[in-house]
Amino acid sequence: MLSTSMVRAKEPTTMRAFLDRLGVQLPIIQAPMAGGPDTPELAAAVGEAGGLGSLGCAYLSAEQIDALVARTRSLAGKPFALNLFIREDDATAPADPAPILAMFRQELGLPSQGRPGKPPPSFDAQLAAVLRARPRVFSFTFGLLKPSQLDELRAANILVVGTATSLDEAEALAALGVDAIAAQGSEAGGHRGTFIGRTEESLIGTMALTRQIVAKVNIPVIAAGGIMDGAGIRAAFGLGATAVQLGTAFMLCPEAGTHPAHRAHLLSPEARRTVVTRAFSGRAARGIRNRMTDAFEGVSTPPFPVQQELTAELRAAAAAQGRTDLMQMWTGQGAPLLRELPAAVLVRALAAEAGLPIT
Amino acid sequence: MLSTSMVRAKEPTTMRAFLDRLGVQLPIIQAPMAGGPDTPELAAAVGEAGGLGSLGCAYLSAEQIDALVARTRSLAGKPFALNLFIREDDATAPADPAPILAMFRQELGLPSQGRPGKPPPSFDAQLAAVLRARPRVFSFTFGLLKPSQLDELRAANILVVGTATSLDEAEALAALGVDAIAAQGSEAGGHRGTFIGRTEESLIGTMALTRQIVAKVNIPVIAAGGIMDGAGIRAAFGLGATAVQLGTAFMLCPEAGTHPAHRAHLLSPEARRTVVTRAFSGRAARGIRNRMTDAFEGVSTPPFPVQQELTAELRAAAAAQGRTDLMQMWTGQGAPLLRELPAAVLVRALAAEAGLPIT
Repeated sequence: MLSTSMVRAKEPTTMRAFLDRLGVQLPIIQAPMAGGPDTPELAAAVGEAGGLGSLGCAYLSAEQIDALVARTRSLAGKPFALNLFIREDDATAPADPAPILAMFRQELGLPSQGRPGKPPPSFDAQLAAVLRARPRVFSFTFGLLKPSQLDELRAANILVVGTATSLDEAEALAALGVDAIAAQGSEAGGHRGTFIGRTEESLIGTMALTRQIVAKVNIPVIAAGGIMDGAGIRAAFGLGATAVQLGTAFMLCPEAGTHPAHRAHLLSPEARRTVVTRAFSGRAARGIRNRMTDAFEGVSTPPFPVQQELTAELRAAAAAQGRTDLMQMWTGQGAPLLRELPAAVLVRALAAEAGLPIT
Repeated sequence: MLSTSMVRAKEPTTMRAFLDRLGVQLPIIQAPMAGGPDTPELAAAVGEAGGLGSLGCAYLSAEQIDALVARTRSLAGKPFALNLFIREDDATAPADPAPILAMFRQELGLPSQGRPGKPPPSFDAQLAAVLRARPRVFSFTFGLLKPSQLDELRAANILVVGTATSLDEAEALAALGVDAIAAQGSEAGGHRGTFIGRTEESLIGTMALTRQIVAKVNIPVIAAGGIMDGAGIRAAFGLGATAVQLGTAFMLCPEAGTHPAHRAHLLSPEARRTVVTRAFSGRAARGIRNRMTDAFEGVSTPPFPVQQELTAELRAAAAAQGRTDLMQMWTGQGAPLLRELPAAVLVRALAAEAGLPIT
C-alpha cells in the first residue's frame, strides 16, 4: 500500500463524450423529484437552457407516464431523463403506526381509520412505458435492474444511470454494466437509494462518496447532494465527477410543482434542519424536520410502500391544509443557499458561475 | 430573493494572510484525534513538512498537557494546535447500559461489574495548561468558550478556532468572535462537535456545510470531513475554504498512535461501513460499525462522559485483546482512500496533488 499514486481527474474529453451521449450542452442535471417538484414545465425549461431535466415516474401508472412524456415533448424537443424505483419490498414484520397516525388524522379532520392509498403500479408496466417513451436517459434508484432489462434499455438506445449511496453499490452497478452512476451523497433530499446494507452506514457525504467512486469505479460519475451553485459544481468536477445533479436547487423555480407551504418553509430557518426519516413512506428519505418526523423518530414503520399507502390520506390532507408540521417536505442539506429563479435563468447562472460554456 | 449574486471565493491573499497567522506554509491541518492516533511524533512530522499538526488534549490533565507540549516541542520547533472539548454535560436521566456492557465484559474476561473510569480533568485546569503552553492555535469542540476565556487566549496571541457542524453553530461562533471555524462535515471520523440542536439534524455533508458557512459567515473556514487527497483539497478550496483539516488520512502514518488492529481494519472492506454511535462515550461519534455499535443502536446511553467512564475498562480490555468487534475505532467516511505513508511524505503528496507550493 506504499503508494503516492494520484487518482487522475476525468479528462475533458470524457465529459464532452458523456454530454454527447446525454444529448445536452451542460453537465447539469435536474434531479428527479417524484410526487411534486418535478414537472414537465421544469424539465422542459432545464432542457431549453442546455441542461438535462428529469421526471420521477415511480408513483405513476404506465398511462400516466405516457401522458407525462407527451406533455414534456410538447413543451420542448430536448432530451430528458425518466426515473423509476426498483422495489425490493422489505419482508420484515410490519410495525403498527396506527396510534401515531390516528392522532394526526384527527387533527386534520380525517376519520381515525382511513382507506390506505393504492400501491404503486407494477415496475414491469412502468418500465414498458419507459421503453415506449424512449427517453435519452433512464435512471433508477433503490436497487439493480435485471440484466435482461438493461439489455432492453440498451437496445432502445437509452443511456442507463444507476444510483449508488456507497462504494459497494457503485461496484455492483458497474458490474451490472450501467453507463453512469449517480453518486447520491448524504446531503441529498428525498429518498435514499440505499440497496446494499443499512441506510445508516450509507449516509456518506458527497465529498467522500464522489471521490471514492471516481477513484475505484471506471465509469462516469454524476455527483449529487448539497450542490447549490457554481462553486459546488466546480468542487464536484474537482473530485472527478463528469456531471452534477441538483434537486433542491430547483425547488423554488416557478416551473416546479413545489407546494406553496413547502416553498415558504424553504426560505425559513426551518430548512436548515433536515432529517432522514421513514415517517412518510417507510423508506429513509431526507426532509425538513417537523412533528411528523419527530413522532416517528426511533419508531419502526412498515416497509415501503406500505407506510406510504397508510399515510396517503394524511399526507394529502396535511398538504391541502398547508400544515407544515405534518406535511412531507423532501429537502436536501443545501437549502440555506436556495435561490428563487426561473429554471432557465438558474441553469445559466450555474453554468456561468462554474465557468461552463454557454451558447 | 430574485438574485443571481454569487458567493465570492476567498481571495488568495486571504489564504496567505491566514497561513501567516497559523505560522505554517501549507493550508493542511492534521486533525486532533484524542485518545490514540494523534501523537507528538505525528504533529511534529506534519509540522516539519509545512502543515499544522494538532494534539487532542480533551482527556489529559494539566500536567499531561504540559508533558505532551514539551515532547512535541523537543521533536520540532514548528507551530501546532491544541484541542479541548467544551463540556456541557447532558442532564437527561441516564439510561442503564449495564446489561449490554456486562455481556461484553464477560467475553473479555472482566468482572461483570467494574470500576468506572475517572472523569476527564476540569476544563478550567486544561485551559490553564493551554495558556501556559501558548500554542500557535487553540481549537475547541462541543460548544462555545466564555468571552473571558476567548479574551485570555487572544491576549496570549493564540489563534482560536471553533468547531461547527451546522450554519447555526457557525453563526454562534462568529458572534462569539473566534478567528476561524472548522466546518466539521458529516464525513468526519470521531466525535461530532454538535452543540446546538440534535446530532441527527447536524450531520451535514462537507460539500453542503462548507459552502453555506463560507457564504454566510465572514471568517476563514477550515473544511473537514472526507478529504483524503489533493482532489478533495482542491474541491474544498473551490467551495471557498481557506484551509483543510484531515484526520482519517493520517491514521495509517507510522507516526500515528493508531492501534494495530484498527490499522488492519482500516485496510479492510469493514472500513467502508462507519456509523455515528453513542456506544463508547455517550456522545455521538463516527467509527467503524461493529458488535458494540450494533448493540447500542436505538439504545439510549448515559450522557458523555458517564458512558465514557462506564466503558473505560471494556474499551481498554478490547484494545488489549485486539477485539475489533468491541473496540472503539473512530474513522471517517474517506477511509477507502487511505494511504499508508510517513506523515511528511503524505503532507507533501497532498500539497503536490492539490497544486500547492512546496519548498
